Amino acid sequence: MARKTGSHSEITGPRIRAEASRLFARHGFAAVSMRQIAAAVGVQAGALYLYTPDKEALLFDLLKTHMEELLAAWAEAPRGAGALGALETFVRFHIRFNLMRAEAVFLSYMELRNLNAANFAVIEALRGRYEGELEAILKAGQAEGALALPDTKLATMAIIAMLTGVTTWYREGGRLDRETVETIYWDMVRKAVAA
Amino acid sequence: MARKTGSHSEITGPRIRAEASRLFARHGFAAVSMRQIAAAVGVQAGALYLYTPDKEALLFDLLKTHMEELLAAWAEAPRGAGALGALETFVRFHIRFNLMRAEAVFLSYMELRNLNAANFAVIEALRGRYEGELEAILKAGQAEGALALPDTKLATMAIIAMLTGVTTWYREGGRLDRETVETIYWDMVRKAVAA
Repeated sequence: MARKTGSHSEITGPRIRAEASRLFARHGFAAVSMRQIAAAVGVQAGALYLYTPDKEALLFDLLKTHMEELLAAWAEAPRGAGALGALETFVRFHIRFNLMRAEAVFLSYMELRNLNAANFAVIEALRGRYEGELEAILKAGQAEGALALPDTKLATMAIIAMLTGVTTWYREGGRLDRETVETIYWDMVRKAVAA
Repeated sequence: MARKTGSHSEITGPRIRAEASRLFARHGFAAVSMRQIAAAVGVQAGALYLYTPDKEALLFDLLKTHMEELLAAWAEAPRGAGALGALETFVRFHIRFNLMRAEAVFLSYMELRNLNAANFAVIEALRGRYEGELEAILKAGQAEGALALPDTKLATMAIIAMLTGVTTWYREGGRLDRETVETIYWDMVRKAVAA
């Protein structure tokens, strides 16, 4: 198969991922064809196949890119002092990042079933790394005596689910602005894990 | 169209809903045909149409039944004393009920996009009623002075998301039994909303 060159150079990963993400989130992975994605990007289906071998590979690319960008953004987020400071940073970061990527978050939960076993394992490992970042903060807080938790693994899952849930109901311009939502969630998380 | 009679009387709602739920959860609403559902139930496609006019109506039936059963089970759950007792009852009830219906919970989040506006509004109203049950407990707890919350609506959404998240990782026979998971989550919720 021909390599991406010349007139195809405008078919960039981010553009393809953005259109695929939008279509998958709206109609479901199974209901969207490569032809539809190509049309949304504004190219022939054949050109799309220069970028990705098939639809499942494209879904994997989407979910993997989402997790890698999440991990990279978290690695660069400036942390507050001590475990409590780091935990507050995490809470605010997670809400903010996920609100910006609500579509990708939705797909990350809903379309995992469409990945093959090897690709699923890659996404699971990336998620595990991210969850490990929060769990390390919780363990450090316990060691410092700032936090008291019966189980750091369950607290990790509970906190992430609670924070990610914001993407299901938050609307820009609603009753509370994002900053206020972050602060209210931080108040609840802080109390939930306090010593 | 003929009404359900005689040899079709074995095509009961619960059987159809169980097979449709399993197929939708596994492959996605868009990827499953009425023919496949009929085959899984063990009838001709024509017989399925005696029960439901189309696939969207069947999805609506699934999601509506799930919410109605959730509300009915909650109405019958024996409550602990005071707002704290009622809150503990809610936490344990929600985890237990949702773990038994993990497939329906998954569909309830994922396939809402496939409902028409009128049906979507019905499901949203049922959800609102269920959320209202928890919010009433939180408000009573604030009035009693047992709970302190910056925002009962956000606390409601945060607690439900946290508890529902258990369905995404809990496996029977895993490290912790369901009772222990309930107790650990109750500990975190209690602290999160404590006065």
